[in-house]
Amino acid sequence: MTVLLDELRSLLGAANVLTGEDTAGYRRDWYGRYEGTPLAVVRPSSTEEASQVMAAAYAAGVSMVPISGNTGTSGGTHGQDALMISLQRMNRIAEVRPLARTAIVEAGATVGSIHEAVAAHDLIFPLHFGAQGTAMIGGALATNAGGSNVLRYGNARASCQGIEVVLPDGRVMNLMSELHKDNSGYDLRDLIIGAEGTLGLITRAVLRLQPKSRAHATAMVGMEDLGAAMDLLARLQVATGSAVEAFECMPKSYIDAYLRFAEGATPPFADSHAYTVLIEIGVTAPKYAEATASGEVPIVALLEELLAEAMEAGGVRDAVVAQSEAQRAALWKRRELAAELSVARRPCIDNDIALPTHAIADFLWAVEHRFKALDAGAEDFWVSHLGDGNIHYTVYPTSDDAGLKDGIVSAIEDEVMARGGSFSAEHGIGLSKVPSMKRRKDPVALDVMHAIKAALDPKGLMNPGKVLPPA
Amino acid sequence: MTVLLDELRSLLGAANVLTGEDTAGYRRDWYGRYEGTPLAVVRPSSTEEASQVMAAAYAAGVSMVPISGNTGTSGGTHGQDALMISLQRMNRIAEVRPLARTAIVEAGATVGSIHEAVAAHDLIFPLHFGAQGTAMIGGALATNAGGSNVLRYGNARASCQGIEVVLPDGRVMNLMSELHKDNSGYDLRDLIIGAEGTLGLITRAVLRLQPKSRAHATAMVGMEDLGAAMDLLARLQVATGSAVEAFECMPKSYIDAYLRFAEGATPPFADSHAYTVLIEIGVTAPKYAEATASGEVPIVALLEELLAEAMEAGGVRDAVVAQSEAQRAALWKRRELAAELSVARRPCIDNDIALPTHAIADFLWAVEHRFKALDAGAEDFWVSHLGDGNIHYTVYPTSDDAGLKDGIVSAIEDEVMARGGSFSAEHGIGLSKVPSMKRRKDPVALDVMHAIKAALDPKGLMNPGKVLPPA
Repeated sequence: MTVLLDELRSLLGAANVLTGEDTAGYRRDWYGRYEGTPLAVVRPSSTEEASQVMAAAYAAGVSMVPISGNTGTSGGTHGQDALMISLQRMNRIAEVRPLARTAIVEAGATVGSIHEAVAAHDLIFPLHFGAQGTAMIGGALATNAGGSNVLRYGNARASCQGIEVVLPDGRVMNLMSELHKDNSGYDLRDLIIGAEGTLGLITRAVLRLQPKSRAHATAMVGMEDLGAAMDLLARLQVATGSAVEAFECMPKSYIDAYLRFAEGATPPFADSHAYTVLIEIGVTAPKYAEATASGEVPIVALLEELLAEAMEAGGVRDAVVAQSEAQRAALWKRRELAAELSVARRPCIDNDIALPTHAIADFLWAVEHRFKALDAGAEDFWVSHLGDGNIHYTVYPTSDDAGLKDGIVSAIEDEVMARGGSFSAEHGIGLSKVPSMKRRKDPVALDVMHAIKAALDPKGLMNPGKVLPPA
Repeated sequence: MTVLLDELRSLLGAANVLTGEDTAGYRRDWYGRYEGTPLAVVRPSSTEEASQVMAAAYAAGVSMVPISGNTGTSGGTHGQDALMISLQRMNRIAEVRPLARTAIVEAGATVGSIHEAVAAHDLIFPLHFGAQGTAMIGGALATNAGGSNVLRYGNARASCQGIEVVLPDGRVMNLMSELHKDNSGYDLRDLIIGAEGTLGLITRAVLRLQPKSRAHATAMVGMEDLGAAMDLLARLQVATGSAVEAFECMPKSYIDAYLRFAEGATPPFADSHAYTVLIEIGVTAPKYAEATASGEVPIVALLEELLAEAMEAGGVRDAVVAQSEAQRAALWKRRELAAELSVARRPCIDNDIALPTHAIADFLWAVEHRFKALDAGAEDFWVSHLGDGNIHYTVYPTSDDAGLKDGIVSAIEDEVMARGGSFSAEHGIGLSKVPSMKRRKDPVALDVMHAIKAALDPKGLMNPGKVLPPA
C-alpha cells in the first residue's frame, strides 16, 4: 500500500492524499451509523487525475469509494480500508447555456451552487432537497436523488442529459451529450446514474435546466381523506397544465410532533385535521404570474377558486393561501423540519418507501397493525411526497434490539411489496438497504445486476458491498 | 432444427409456428432494403409461452429476432435463418388506471390501439408518429421511439414506468413498476428500452399517461432565420408554461417538394419563406381552453398575441393561426407527408440526426458544402423536430454507387459529430447504422456495451448483428 500511496502523492501532491487524522471528516456518515477508517482520501483536480488515480488503485487491487457531500442516508460512502475519492476540488460550473437551458458542471459542485449559478439567467436546476447546500451533484446523480419537486420535474436522472464517467480501471467514458434525442446504443447514462458509484465515478455532467417560475401559489389545506387528496391533485394538475411543483402530506402525528419540537411553532388551522397538505404551483407565464391592477395575482386567484370549489364539494376542510413570500416561507417551514423531527427521537427505524398512489391509504392502515403486533408500544411518524407516492415512514420501537428492528423493517416491506411498492424510493440502497435488496428484489433482476457489475468491475473494487448483496 | 421446430409446435400449436411461404409478411422491412428468410416465425400468446420458446431456442443455439409492427427504418428486424418472435397475439390493453394515469399493456398492442383505449378517460398516451397504427408498443419501447410530441412529453422511455422482459435464455425479469420513484438498484428498465431487442424481449409494459389537452392552438409561421425560431420557441415555452407540443420546421425546399408532390397542395403563405414552422400548443385547463362569451378561445388568443409581438420584433414574417379543427388538420397535412416525400425520389440517403439546437444553422450551412464537394449534383431535403434538435436529413445523390453514398453519410457524420451531435436521434441503429456506431461512438462506451451484451447474452443469440459492431 505504501507504494500506491507514494504513487498517488506523486500524481496529486501530498496535500491531496489524506491519511490518518486528516481523514476524520470523511469517516462517518451524517446519521452517525457507519464509521470506518479509509486507506486514504484522495482529491483529484481533473478527470485526468481521477483516471490516473483509479488506474493505479485498480492495478494495485485496492477498493475505491467515491465520497461526495456525505449527505446520503444509506451508508453508501462507508470506506473501511478503501481509497476514498473526493471530487471537492472539481467544483466548477463550467458553462450555463440559457437558450439551450443546459449547464455543464464538474461533479464536485454543490447542488446549491448550481442553483445560484443558473438563477442569474432566470432558470432553475429543479433538484431541491434539505441537504442541497452540502450535497454535490456527483453524489446526487450517483444516488438519483429526489426531493420536493420530483412531481413536476422528475428526479436527478430526469434533469441530466449527459455524464462523463471514469470506469473502475481508469478508462474515461464520454457520454457528455447535450442532446434531447440520442438513440445510439444502450442507455449507459441511466445505468450509471443511480448505481451509487458501484460501476464508476461520475466526473462531469450536462444538466437540464427549467425556466424559473415567476410566481408561486402556495397553500396549506386540511383534509380527512387521502383519496380526496389524490383527487384534488388530479384536479389541480388539469386546471394548471401540470404546474403543481409540490404536494406534500403531513398526518396529524407529524403536526403534533412539529408543535412539540419547533420553537415558536403554530398550528396550521384552528381545528386539527387527519392530513395537512402543502401545495405549491409555479408559473412562468407573465399573464398568470403578474399582479393585475386590483393587486390580484392570477395564479393565486385560480388556486383560491379551486380550493373554494373543493371545500364546497367537501374534500378540503380548511385552507390557507399564502399572500406574501413571508407567508409562503412560513408554510414551508412546517414541512422542512421533517428530517430533523424524524431522528429527534431514538431508537428510530427510517423507511424511504414508494407505493402506487391508490394503495397508500390501505398501506398505512395495514402497516400500523403489523408493527404494533411486534411491538405494542411502537409509534410511527411519517411525511409524504404524496404526488409521487413516496413516504418517509419512521417507526420508533420501544427497544433498540436488532432483531426487533429487523422484524419491523421486514413487516413494513411485506406490506409495501404486497402492493407493488418499493423499499427504496429516493434514498438508494447503500449499505443499509442491502438486506432488503436480497430478500425483496426480483431475483432475475438481481442476477442481471450482478452480471453487469461483474462485466464492468471484474475485480469488484468500486464501492464494494454497496447496492448488491453477495451473489 | 427439425427437433426445435417440433418442440415449438408442441408448445404453441402448429398454427403459431410459421415456416416457408407463411413467413412472407415478416421477411422484408418496410423500406424494402432488407430481406431475409427466417427459420420460422413464432407467435406466443403469453409471457410464459414466450419464455418457453426462448429457453428452447437458447438451448438449441438458435438466433432470435423480435419482430413487432415492422415499421422500423434501420433494419432492426432482419432475420435471416433466425427464429423470429412476434407478439401480435399478445395485444391486450389489460388495464387503464385513470387516477394513477397508467396503462398496463401487452407488447403486441399497437400504439394506435393504446391511443384509442385511453381517450375514453380523457387521457393520452403521448407517443405520436406516422406509423402508430401499425407499430406495436413493444417495438416502440425496444427502439425508444420519438415522434412529434417529444418536445413536451419526451420519447418512449419517458412514457414508460415499467416493463416485463424475457431474457435470451428464457428467464422472466419483472420490472413492472407503477412507481414514480424507485431507487432499488441499477436502472435495468432504461437499459432494455432502446436496446432494440439485443438484450431481451419486452413482453409487457406499464405506460405513463397524460391528461388530454382540451384545446390546441396551432399556427404556421414563415421565418427567415433559425436563431429567431429558437428564440420564439423559448418565448412560447415561458408564456405557456412549457405547453408547446410541437415545433416542426420545414425549409423552403420541403414546401417546394410538397407543392409539386401532393394533390391539391396549396402554399402556406403568399410569399415564400426560408423556413415554415408548425407550432402547436395544448392546454388542459378549462380556463384557457374554453371559448369565452365572445367566442374567443384564450389559448388561441394568447398565441395570436405572442405571434403579433414576434412579427413586430421582426422574427416572424407571416403567420396563420388555425380557427377550427379543419384548419388545424390542413396545417398538419403539410408536415405529415414528410416520410412519403423523402423517399419519393431515389436513390436517397436518409439520416436521422440530432444536434445541440444552437448548432443547427451552422451545421446546415456546412453540410451542404460537404456533400456537394463529393457529388455536385446532389440535393438535400429535410424536415426537423426543431425543438428537439432532431433533423431528418435526406440527400439525393446523382448515382446509386455504394462508395459515394457511404462517403456522403460519413461527411454528414463529420459535421454532426464536430458539433456534439448524434448520428441516430430517434430511429435507432438496427443494421443500417452499425457502421456509424463503429466509427463514431465513444470507444469506451462501445466496449462497455459489448461487456453488457456478453454478460446478458453470452451466446450472442438475441437479434445478432444489430446495434453493436463486431467487437
